[in-house]
Amino acid sequence: MAQPDNLSEFDLIKQYFVRQRAGRATLGIGDDCALLTPSAGKQFAISSDMLVEDRHFFAGADPRKLGHKSLAVNLSDLAAMGARPVAFTLALALPQADRAWLAGFAAGLFALADAHDCELIGGDTTKGPLNICITVFGELAPGQALRRSHAVPGDDIWISGTVGDARLALAGYRMEQSLSAEELASAAVRMHTPTPRVALGHALAENKLAHAAIDISDGLVGDLGHILKASQVGATLDVDALPAGPILALQDTGLRRRFAAAGGDDYELCFTAPAASRAAIAALAITCGTPATRVGCIEAEPGLRLVDANGVALDLRLSSFDHFSD
Amino acid sequence: MAQPDNLSEFDLIKQYFVRQRAGRATLGIGDDCALLTPSAGKQFAISSDMLVEDRHFFAGADPRKLGHKSLAVNLSDLAAMGARPVAFTLALALPQADRAWLAGFAAGLFALADAHDCELIGGDTTKGPLNICITVFGELAPGQALRRSHAVPGDDIWISGTVGDARLALAGYRMEQSLSAEELASAAVRMHTPTPRVALGHALAENKLAHAAIDISDGLVGDLGHILKASQVGATLDVDALPAGPILALQDTGLRRRFAAAGGDDYELCFTAPAASRAAIAALAITCGTPATRVGCIEAEPGLRLVDANGVALDLRLSSFDHFSD
Repeated sequence: MAQPDNLSEFDLIKQYFVRQRAGRATLGIGDDCALLTPSAGKQFAISSDMLVEDRHFFAGADPRKLGHKSLAVNLSDLAAMGARPVAFTLALALPQADRAWLAGFAAGLFALADAHDCELIGGDTTKGPLNICITVFGELAPGQALRRSHAVPGDDIWISGTVGDARLALAGYRMEQSLSAEELASAAVRMHTPTPRVALGHALAENKLAHAAIDISDGLVGDLGHILKASQVGATLDVDALPAGPILALQDTGLRRRFAAAGGDDYELCFTAPAASRAAIAALAITCGTPATRVGCIEAEPGLRLVDANGVALDLRLSSFDHFSD
Repeated sequence: MAQPDNLSEFDLIKQYFVRQRAGRATLGIGDDCALLTPSAGKQFAISSDMLVEDRHFFAGADPRKLGHKSLAVNLSDLAAMGARPVAFTLALALPQADRAWLAGFAAGLFALADAHDCELIGGDTTKGPLNICITVFGELAPGQALRRSHAVPGDDIWISGTVGDARLALAGYRMEQSLSAEELASAAVRMHTPTPRVALGHALAENKLAHAAIDISDGLVGDLGHILKASQVGATLDVDALPAGPILALQDTGLRRRFAAAGGDDYELCFTAPAASRAAIAALAITCGTPATRVGCIEAEPGLRLVDANGVALDLRLSSFDHFSD
């Protein structure tokens, strides 16, 4: 970051985060609290994510991309619940008040917020090691939430978009995997600026097409595991059916399987739906502009069985990301 | 902190933050989002505060007190709006998963949360420099919020409880002020375990007794300044009428005036109310067990005029706390 200048806490908020546009909130930034009410007959879905330098992003990361990603990972939680974004709060610890950084961060943040009509209604700023904590509010009708506990045997397992390129980019940065500059740049887009699948998640819930959903942040196998545990079911996953990202698809089979199944940082949706929903989901995927791929099925037998395209069991020895073990 | 052991992110949440008790939320910890609806006819008041080590608390701070304070500063924002606490999210960055620290932090956090019937509904945990970000949800009827912009000329200015002991404790720790061990210990209670004035704030709003309110976190003069600016009014403040904390009251006049007027970290309420509310506020203060003291009046003339007990102007050269200037 460049040298700070004399930007006070209140000037910082006013210059970079208060906007002159009408919003949904009864009261936004500038009082002890914001005031917000869900639309008639709706409830709030609420999620918080905290992003820490050197943990969730590299030191020196492009602030514009970081602004995007900070909100994207939260919107992804709303998508996984089937909620429509409404508003968010932003708490920000910064080593210093750097104008260029703030301008970039705010630009990336608000570009995504505006695309989803999601209003910044409050928050906090303080000096400290770089830390970004967003709490997001969406709304949905009672009973429509795509809960982790609602998968049932016989459900198809679906994945939105593609998986694994974010993990491949990380391997490229770490020199664990040799990638051309073009390949790395392409895969890195998925790592730095993930696309939350808000329209698809909301439409799945609103049209009652899916039973359960989760967003893939720590790797598909681990995240699907949360659905299986909460729903007290098992599953068979066709690893070769997983929609690998375009750069990962160029890599060898072993790497492709591992990174698609357990890469992490994908922010795609993994959802389960009855076979009766197949045609409607396929149509919805086209409407939303987000591909959806069937990759397995929910079964009564506990456990997750990974198989190849021929149905032969695979032993990939995967592990999900854990913040206190990894 | 002691050495970490093999506590995974999910075990950490399950062992220290998931509780077996019925709450207000339709869905709490354990899915992509929590689901929460305000009571019929109510709206949500929402606030986020981020606490950073070495900025808001000392390194090595007692985790139990820290758990209390992290929620207290957020509940104080609800109190200043006149909202009743309902729920909160907790995002926590920890250098390591230390069981003793987590147990202490959770104990302090939940003791205060339970006292206010405020449910933990979700959040995030990650490894990183110690950072605690809470977003709190209260509820209140539309039109009842104690907004900073609603002070009017003729209003009395009131202060809850006492002010200045938290700042005095800081001066004691920093060796800027000589205090006996007993004095420091007593003043430090106000610094480490502030009492959010939830019952008083909520009752003021519900009974429509006050016009405007703010909680005193950065120092009374600065925080009252936010009310004056938002309401486009001025005020005269009788600095000698300020209810100094019991330890500050023992200090010399100059220090007492400065720390009472601009100490910070008090988490008392500063509110404005018409003269017609005086008797009702005095009665409410007794009901709530929270003293309330009249310390000045709102005037049409812009600016804040500090006077002594005889009405003579004081020039205290105070400054409010600013995270990026101090």
